Amino acid sequence: MADYSERALLPEGFHDDLPPEAEGEASVIAALLARFQAYGYGRVAPPLVEFEDSLLAGSGKTQSRQMFRLMDPVSQRMMGIRTDMTIQVARIAATRLAASPRPLRLCYAGQVLLVKGGQIRSERQFGQAGVELIGVGSIEADAEVLLLAADALRAVGVQGLSADLTVPSLVPVLAAELGLPDVAAGQIRAALNAKDIGQLQSIEGRAGEIFRGLLAASGEADAALRALQELQLPAQAAAIVAELQGLVTRVQALSPDLVLTIDPGEFRGFEYKAGIAFTLFAAKGRGELGRGGRYEITRADTGAAEAATGVSLYLDSLMRVATAPDMAAKLYVPHGTAVTLLAGLQDQGYRTVRGLAPEADVRAAARHLGCGYIYADERITLLD
Amino acid sequence: MADYSERALLPEGFHDDLPPEAEGEASVIAALLARFQAYGYGRVAPPLVEFEDSLLAGSGKTQSRQMFRLMDPVSQRMMGIRTDMTIQVARIAATRLAASPRPLRLCYAGQVLLVKGGQIRSERQFGQAGVELIGVGSIEADAEVLLLAADALRAVGVQGLSADLTVPSLVPVLAAELGLPDVAAGQIRAALNAKDIGQLQSIEGRAGEIFRGLLAASGEADAALRALQELQLPAQAAAIVAELQGLVTRVQALSPDLVLTIDPGEFRGFEYKAGIAFTLFAAKGRGELGRGGRYEITRADTGAAEAATGVSLYLDSLMRVATAPDMAAKLYVPHGTAVTLLAGLQDQGYRTVRGLAPEADVRAAARHLGCGYIYADERITLLD
Repeated sequence: MADYSERALLPEGFHDDLPPEAEGEASVIAALLARFQAYGYGRVAPPLVEFEDSLLAGSGKTQSRQMFRLMDPVSQRMMGIRTDMTIQVARIAATRLAASPRPLRLCYAGQVLLVKGGQIRSERQFGQAGVELIGVGSIEADAEVLLLAADALRAVGVQGLSADLTVPSLVPVLAAELGLPDVAAGQIRAALNAKDIGQLQSIEGRAGEIFRGLLAASGEADAALRALQELQLPAQAAAIVAELQGLVTRVQALSPDLVLTIDPGEFRGFEYKAGIAFTLFAAKGRGELGRGGRYEITRADTGAAEAATGVSLYLDSLMRVATAPDMAAKLYVPHGTAVTLLAGLQDQGYRTVRGLAPEADVRAAARHLGCGYIYADERITLLD
Repeated sequence: MADYSERALLPEGFHDDLPPEAEGEASVIAALLARFQAYGYGRVAPPLVEFEDSLLAGSGKTQSRQMFRLMDPVSQRMMGIRTDMTIQVARIAATRLAASPRPLRLCYAGQVLLVKGGQIRSERQFGQAGVELIGVGSIEADAEVLLLAADALRAVGVQGLSADLTVPSLVPVLAAELGLPDVAAGQIRAALNAKDIGQLQSIEGRAGEIFRGLLAASGEADAALRALQELQLPAQAAAIVAELQGLVTRVQALSPDLVLTIDPGEFRGFEYKAGIAFTLFAAKGRGELGRGGRYEITRADTGAAEAATGVSLYLDSLMRVATAPDMAAKLYVPHGTAVTLLAGLQDQGYRTVRGLAPEADVRAAARHLGCGYIYADERITLLD
């Protein structure tokens, strides 16, 4: 009926997942959610589409250029297709679940769409899964979320996991404590984000010493923390570093094989984080597996701010390093075999593939359909 | 950060699934897919968005008014958000999997979006799950798909399942065999779809007798088939009824508790079906659970038509009658309990909820978070 021959099949950045990849991704998502739920996180499922202004609220405003818009013929208002589910889960926590007891633990998984693919992530549709721990702002809460992300990633076979920690508030706090004018502070932020040591060389005195020290302190967590302590930072900045030290100590004690690094000058992409933020990587595989950190939600009922920590995992980069569970073997069941036998064969762990018409050669029919086993003479036989 | 107070939360027809509903729906989808996969159906996952003309190909053209459009800034072509996944799976079978051995068994699950909600189904986003059996057009294939749908629905606790069978080609074939002019045939189709016996009274002779007989033959399958046989239909129509009889006999033998009814004059909504079509219902619950039937695909490689049978289940109506599995009980683990104990407690079937700060009253803290059990003094205790 349809004629596909003269058309590009799919728009750039969108793809079909075929067997066995589609099942592998579904299994990985199910395994992640099972870990989240085992730690008491309740699943929520917000819609793919919402009013544009809901999706652009708070930290959502950074998503504006990446969001597809739709006119809603019912309300005559603009809607957007979600680019991120964190915003939606925060909305649920702030509104429909505002009266639910805190800490509120929520988890989610779903698809998100982007107007344009990025350089690292070329896809315009990908799966996202994550957790939000709402109503507590503490190192204990940050540690729970980071360790849960690591637990879930290990459950899907990710090896050589590392977390890069950053504190987006550190540089602005330091700039204020050192009395730097806004212009200088902006230049320093740019230089730190670009890891541009040359630019920092021109800053004189104590400020120059500290910001160059910050850049030099990037790397393995214990060494980075020692370097930061040697900088003898002013009080508020020192308190931030002490929090970072607290999280590192806690995570190292509970998950010694999770490699921790620190990038104290980095904050790009974390503008809306209120505390420690982290990015997850696997030893192999390119691109980040996920991001998380602390942020703030404004409750719809009282208008009060409440702290939250969350993490989002990106299924496209995750699927490059995850191990999907083995699929059950396919067993060919020749035409004429009683259908009532199938359930028993499936209970033995096979996928049954029925012959829909009499076969001239049962083994050839089985091989044709990619079955490794046949059921014949009331027995399961491995095809050689 | 966000202020949601003055806004309607979500556009009409879209909703947030909260705990435990979101988990329930995910469990039901996973259980359906597990049944599909047990019968050798391989999962595919097409994207939410495609080029408009792909989604409107073939039977997709009936979806045009229900499809949201997006301009693709990359290709400058119009894209649509899928309203149905069957079209997408047919595209995959006809193109990327054109060279895969037949019969090709595929399954899928995902979200679809509609521009406007219907009277029965007010939602504009809902989940769809189903199977397609491609490359065979036979009663055996139809029976496999119908029985698999019934098996999957029973696996998620649906009771009192019935399938209403129809043959969209029967009325047009009869009209041709009886030599009716197009106008008369159109009026008869309309009268049959409207179950308007009055309109049919005015048709004289053999044709009037047959079409009134068709309308009267609606109902329980065995009685309907007897009534159809008594009508002594012309050859092609009689052959169609014989096929219907074949499917009924086969399904009754294999699944005696599946109630079968026949509506021989119905074809509304089945315009693109090439053989027997069916609609699934549960004894309780309003609305149909799913639809299926035989159709044709045109292969992109050879241009040849091939027969396929598929079924789609609708998660919104299904969730009203499905039984989601029980969720694991929540166990409160007080602050200070070694985190290394959690995995063992989770293995015993609990969801662990950690205390993130010292509790004044552990039982009160557990109840506050909805936990039915606490872990204290190295024991699990049921909270009374």
